[in-house]
Amino acid sequence: MLILSRSEILSVFSMRDAIEADKRAFILHSQGKCRVPLRINFDAAEGRGQYLFMPAYAGGIERAGIKIVSVFPGNGARGIPVVPATVILLDGETGEVAALIEGTTLTQMRTAAIAGAATELLSRPESSVGALFGTGGQAPAQLEAILTVRNLKEVRVFDVASERVRAFVEANASLAGRFGTRLVAARSSDEAVDGADVITAVTTSARPVFDGGRVKPGAHINGIGAYTPAMEELPPEVLERAGRVYVDNREAVLAEAGDLMTPIREGRFGEEIIAGELGQLLLGEIDGRRNDEEITVMKTVGFATLDVVTAYEIVAKAEAAGVGSRISL
Amino acid sequence: MLILSRSEILSVFSMRDAIEADKRAFILHSQGKCRVPLRINFDAAEGRGQYLFMPAYAGGIERAGIKIVSVFPGNGARGIPVVPATVILLDGETGEVAALIEGTTLTQMRTAAIAGAATELLSRPESSVGALFGTGGQAPAQLEAILTVRNLKEVRVFDVASERVRAFVEANASLAGRFGTRLVAARSSDEAVDGADVITAVTTSARPVFDGGRVKPGAHINGIGAYTPAMEELPPEVLERAGRVYVDNREAVLAEAGDLMTPIREGRFGEEIIAGELGQLLLGEIDGRRNDEEITVMKTVGFATLDVVTAYEIVAKAEAAGVGSRISL
Repeated sequence: MLILSRSEILSVFSMRDAIEADKRAFILHSQGKCRVPLRINFDAAEGRGQYLFMPAYAGGIERAGIKIVSVFPGNGARGIPVVPATVILLDGETGEVAALIEGTTLTQMRTAAIAGAATELLSRPESSVGALFGTGGQAPAQLEAILTVRNLKEVRVFDVASERVRAFVEANASLAGRFGTRLVAARSSDEAVDGADVITAVTTSARPVFDGGRVKPGAHINGIGAYTPAMEELPPEVLERAGRVYVDNREAVLAEAGDLMTPIREGRFGEEIIAGELGQLLLGEIDGRRNDEEITVMKTVGFATLDVVTAYEIVAKAEAAGVGSRISL
Repeated sequence: MLILSRSEILSVFSMRDAIEADKRAFILHSQGKCRVPLRINFDAAEGRGQYLFMPAYAGGIERAGIKIVSVFPGNGARGIPVVPATVILLDGETGEVAALIEGTTLTQMRTAAIAGAATELLSRPESSVGALFGTGGQAPAQLEAILTVRNLKEVRVFDVASERVRAFVEANASLAGRFGTRLVAARSSDEAVDGADVITAVTTSARPVFDGGRVKPGAHINGIGAYTPAMEELPPEVLERAGRVYVDNREAVLAEAGDLMTPIREGRFGEEIIAGELGQLLLGEIDGRRNDEEITVMKTVGFATLDVVTAYEIVAKAEAAGVGSRISL
């Protein structure tokens, strides 16, 4: 069994690698080659948190695996991750546990890579200004993902807590600098969104985090947060202006994403607003951007196939580089 | 995270420990404190095998965990386990992975301990002759379990393949010798069962493996194999003679065990033949053996709470002894 820590993952697996892994997963998913059962949840004692078990089988690469995630809000006070995660990959030939991988890093990379892939597929190539809403644990990888696929001169960062914006800009200036990009602390949501070509929202907000009427024609929007029916970070006006929304997984988005479920329930638009899945776009089954004026939107809630395929690609890179510890039970 | 190999488990955890762990699990289960969702199965490519994910939550000890088991018949030819298994235990305070444990050893011990606990609770204390049907991977631990709870002078071993019986007796003579017990290769099923006080069947047979009419009054029978509706290793006659069958998990046995499902479907007896669960017996909610003449029967198919509680107890012992490797991701 190969064991891979955060630093070992980062030493062999780049954001570009993560984007290619996600594309592979999108294709296998849209081809109907994967199985993702409903995840299993247990409540921990005394309201401490929740345990989530998320198995998946990825046909095409013929690998089963599972992500085990816990959500324990009290962990913050202990200085450990609030959402600790571990991913286990099984061997396709023997069924044995092939690898155990630090799952928080894997999750951050595969989630950011969804936005990276969507931005590469859907945004205008000449995009030069980015806007990032949200400064939580997923935000640095989200920043890296859009910078990996588009040459942005500036990214404006906004969050409802202005001190968090300042801290984020300070902590991530050098990451942005590696791409020749200036990070700017926006003083308002409007200031962040005005003229932005690529907009990424990664919040747990229950209300839209920017004004849909201000979004520039030709912009591309990634909706990454708002992963429950009660959350809604994207303004429904901008979905209406776009007219077509791309998703990672149609069934999952319609079951979990308030960004689409709420306006559909309120009758603003129907399920036909979903243009299709990113996998269908990669397979050439549906159109992508049709002109430089239209707004494109991608909404994701993630699914466990992404974890299994990303784990598979991380393990391949680590084995090729001789990285990681081996244990035998 | 604590990693425990087969040899590390065996160095800190005895069959007696496993029996006590199972008893604790039986009680928590019968108190309704545990959650065991349906297991999730994936078929591997090209008919190579199956992956099984078996999560459980054990209230009372407040621990979640999962057993990941694969069934890959081709592994035998590679010299590796046909049913590789790994058990993961999560921390009750932080939700992090607390331990990863070699699962084949854990499964053998917790499964044998079911028979150990039942034999201790239900067989006559003066039992002196044992019979063991089946010589597969689970059989040595099953032998150890009954010898741990009863002072048997002799155990007769039978299997349809006589060369397997000879090999088993040879390989396990010293184990039996540690308990002062003589292992005997029975030449027939009748020879094994005649006069036996404790009978354990651990086979995948589709037909009863001994003659129910020959079972001695006062005998105790453990039905360990026959874990699918199509298997049936216990003769229905002996269940009728006993009149009352104890089970580890009522719902699971009625859903999976051909030993009960087939005769119930054929109208030989109804579900009321189930006297109750071992947990109820331990809690004093139901009667055990009522006299020295009655035959007692225990049928088990196992359930994931046993794995989680056993993992918890193994980890406690290993931590107290400073055994196992620690890794940090």
